[in-house]
Amino acid sequence: MFDAAPPEPVLGIDPGLSRCGYGVVRREGQQLVPVAFGVMRTPPDMALPERLAMLQADLDDLFDEVQPAALAVERILFQVNARTAIAVGQASGLALAAAARRGIPVTHYSPNEVKLAVTGYGAADKAQVQAMVTRLCNLDAPPSPPDAADALALAICHLWAAPMRQQTGGTAGAAAADVATSSFERAVAAALAKENAT
Amino acid sequence: MFDAAPPEPVLGIDPGLSRCGYGVVRREGQQLVPVAFGVMRTPPDMALPERLAMLQADLDDLFDEVQPAALAVERILFQVNARTAIAVGQASGLALAAAARRGIPVTHYSPNEVKLAVTGYGAADKAQVQAMVTRLCNLDAPPSPPDAADALALAICHLWAAPMRQQTGGTAGAAAADVATSSFERAVAAALAKENAT
Repeated sequence: MFDAAPPEPVLGIDPGLSRCGYGVVRREGQQLVPVAFGVMRTPPDMALPERLAMLQADLDDLFDEVQPAALAVERILFQVNARTAIAVGQASGLALAAAARRGIPVTHYSPNEVKLAVTGYGAADKAQVQAMVTRLCNLDAPPSPPDAADALALAICHLWAAPMRQQTGGTAGAAAADVATSSFERAVAAALAKENAT
Repeated sequence: MFDAAPPEPVLGIDPGLSRCGYGVVRREGQQLVPVAFGVMRTPPDMALPERLAMLQADLDDLFDEVQPAALAVERILFQVNARTAIAVGQASGLALAAAARRGIPVTHYSPNEVKLAVTGYGAADKAQVQAMVTRLCNLDAPPSPPDAADALALAICHLWAAPMRQQTGGTAGAAAADVATSSFERAVAAALAKENAT
């Protein structure tokens, strides 16, 4: 067995309290199959504890329904203001705890890693990411709202990045895969260096 | 019945990921009884999702054990940096969701409201708050670590502030209570005005 593929399906989550994007992706051969995607919302006029409990219940339902084998979450940037950081922290914390409680491994990806994995270009804009997600998942129209596309992109990023990471540290792997790995990793390193410099 | 006392016991939580303080207080006549207090910790070298799942399990155990009738949580200040805000947001989110899931009402108090309620002085320092909590709860020594004292102070604040708030809006209430209410509320308003101005 040379299959270093990560367990499937992969659940991508773009955490937020008003809108929490999710996207579930698995593979069929070389094809990516979007199993489910959408957005979980909580009403802004509802009290915060009730909103968090609602999101937690929705997350639990999602995990139970799609039985993800891995969770990919966007790394929260520290450049955002504290008010946004608290809300995103509250939403992401519920998702991370839900995964860990079920023994599901969690991987964080920076926005640049996701863009690079999906478009081949770490500085791609939102529209480019949406267009590639639409194409890669064989969708008729771009996933809407954009939070759902971002979540699908996270899942795709994990499906593509994880096996390369495993092969680097593993024993098996054809020469072609090794080349792909190192060029991918060089590109990721370059994208991260650029991201950290800004 | 003139009893506008809030349901008891009251659970105070000072949210944090490394140290999450908790304090449970009920009344016996004029006495405050500390039912339980302490700190829930998660190891800093553990992966974040596992830390959050651990804190969530500890919170669930705490809620099940002490059966709080109300939760008092410190309002997160937006002056902190984003990194701290994310961690505090993640921890507080778990506590708020745990309460809402059980139908337990949640009240947020600003640090100045807590200081005012416990020491009578909205700009009191940590040591003054600890000393008053120790005295009010009839403890032999100050609760340690300080996170536990802060959580007890939150619970005490709720026990004292809530009935006054209820009486203001309610129909019953002796003249003495009305006076106490309005002077308390004037003091809180002054403390909040000062806090907002800084």
